[in-house]
Amino acid sequence: MTNPVLVEVLRGAIVESAHRGAIAVFDADNRPVWEVGDTTRPVFPRSAVKAIQALPLVESGAAASYGFGNRELALACASHSGEPAHVELAQAMLAKAGLDKTALECGAHWPSNHQAEIALARTGNLPSALHNNCSGKHAGFLCTCVHAGIAHHGYVRAGHALQEMVRDAMQAVTGAAHGADERAIDGCSIPTYAVPLRSFALGFARMATGAGFGPERAKAAKRLLSACMAEPFFVAGTGRADLALMEAAPGRIFAKGGAEGVYCAAIPELGLGIALKCDDGAGRAAEAMVAAVIAKLLHADETLAAKLIELANAPIESRIGAKVGSLRPTAAFN
Amino acid sequence: MTNPVLVEVLRGAIVESAHRGAIAVFDADNRPVWEVGDTTRPVFPRSAVKAIQALPLVESGAAASYGFGNRELALACASHSGEPAHVELAQAMLAKAGLDKTALECGAHWPSNHQAEIALARTGNLPSALHNNCSGKHAGFLCTCVHAGIAHHGYVRAGHALQEMVRDAMQAVTGAAHGADERAIDGCSIPTYAVPLRSFALGFARMATGAGFGPERAKAAKRLLSACMAEPFFVAGTGRADLALMEAAPGRIFAKGGAEGVYCAAIPELGLGIALKCDDGAGRAAEAMVAAVIAKLLHADETLAAKLIELANAPIESRIGAKVGSLRPTAAFN
Repeated sequence: MTNPVLVEVLRGAIVESAHRGAIAVFDADNRPVWEVGDTTRPVFPRSAVKAIQALPLVESGAAASYGFGNRELALACASHSGEPAHVELAQAMLAKAGLDKTALECGAHWPSNHQAEIALARTGNLPSALHNNCSGKHAGFLCTCVHAGIAHHGYVRAGHALQEMVRDAMQAVTGAAHGADERAIDGCSIPTYAVPLRSFALGFARMATGAGFGPERAKAAKRLLSACMAEPFFVAGTGRADLALMEAAPGRIFAKGGAEGVYCAAIPELGLGIALKCDDGAGRAAEAMVAAVIAKLLHADETLAAKLIELANAPIESRIGAKVGSLRPTAAFN
Repeated sequence: MTNPVLVEVLRGAIVESAHRGAIAVFDADNRPVWEVGDTTRPVFPRSAVKAIQALPLVESGAAASYGFGNRELALACASHSGEPAHVELAQAMLAKAGLDKTALECGAHWPSNHQAEIALARTGNLPSALHNNCSGKHAGFLCTCVHAGIAHHGYVRAGHALQEMVRDAMQAVTGAAHGADERAIDGCSIPTYAVPLRSFALGFARMATGAGFGPERAKAAKRLLSACMAEPFFVAGTGRADLALMEAAPGRIFAKGGAEGVYCAAIPELGLGIALKCDDGAGRAAEAMVAAVIAKLLHADETLAAKLIELANAPIESRIGAKVGSLRPTAAFN
């Protein structure tokens, strides 16, 4: 099936570009609440499932042992922007386990936050693996290894004990098989598995409610999502959509984007999980989609509704900062 | 109609994302040679038509008067990467007309070339309008104004004498009406008009052959395309697709990308013009599409064919530089 156009990009009054996609909203009993497009096609969730991938960090006792609070747990679930506070906290997490940046196997890249990038350039230094948007997740992986007495070298590879723990968590939470046939390699070198969007929606409904989990997992899942909602800057960074969504309604929205146009989200008070992918991989469209679907589902007052509509209709600006167009969710959201 | 998928993005062996689009290939007699998707839908060409927009610079006599050679003319048709050679040449063009960067109305932005961006940051300076990827085009506009005795203030606005000259050229070359209903504002603040892709394909077939033009326009069009093909670095920059395509077969391929997934190209020896748009606006897909369509049309030896296939199947890499996927044109190109 051809997925519908979910977001249009207007320049003036004319549609310049269009983004198709699919969205699944499920409750924790695996009941579809709203679906649009093909939610059965396998999708790589990329960074949108970092909160599930962080379950071993909490369940192993590593997080408690190292005294990790909301900020550290949020950073373990983050695709951060490489701002100084992110970099320093990733380094501090590693230090708790007696490690430093040389243990990270995610690779280095310049901060995605432009101000942080320019500031780093002005110091004359180059970025390290701590600036990698995934350094908090990798710090969490390494802390889990050290706490559990697992040799950490090669922790990014499929088959390593740490990645098997992560895969077990992913399979249990989503209910979908994560086999070698579904596997490819993510930007930060760890395995990523393509499974249906609806499995991720179910998974995040379970993460938000604990339904279907044993008591330890339910507690760990709620701990992670609460940490992200309490410290959303550490999940993303200045000006980012995840931060804007979680700040708009503190404690009521969990949202985490992933590369190639994926978003996973949860609305705890409704017991709902959300997973979506823009077919073409565009982050701008995925951000508009997640704001539009949350606006559709959440009971919002006027201020919150206006904020969600603003996020779903982001402006397109010229180089002098004049508004020359905008994104616009389509009637598929009605 | 729904345009077909033209480029897939593979991660491992699995299709992660997909890009739809439309492509028009026409000769200078307005005969369709190959079309896929809806080539009648209006499309903003953005920067892909800068060579047509530069016709007044040559036809007015300004280029000859200021002694502009291939590099200056290429830069007038460019979306450059803000590398030092681009910035210096834009400044030199303005100086020929007695102007400096303060006359530019395009706005400033950091160089798109990452090395140039970091180098500029390390100087402690901020980018100026000379770093704007359109500064060569705007320098050409300003030189045209000064040479023709037109007051240049507000030269970016619809209705200004310079923009009327540009619009007249666009209408004459493409054969399509460029009215207020088709108009929006481009990133560099000048008007952009949405007209059918097939009109741009016809326009570039004419630009490459001169067919249907008077002798002065035919000469100016060939002069501009020849300049771009002779100095493709000044049309784009290090590592860019336009440069790679024009370097792959010197004098045999003209190619110019535009924002939101547009490409215009010409194959002079076949008398063909090409125009394409990726529906979702993705540059990566438009680059694969233009390489794939040129590979389909051009009589290429083994080396050139391999280069075009390489450009059409760009790798996706992890942060440590490992190849984890690639782009892949679909069977629509067969």
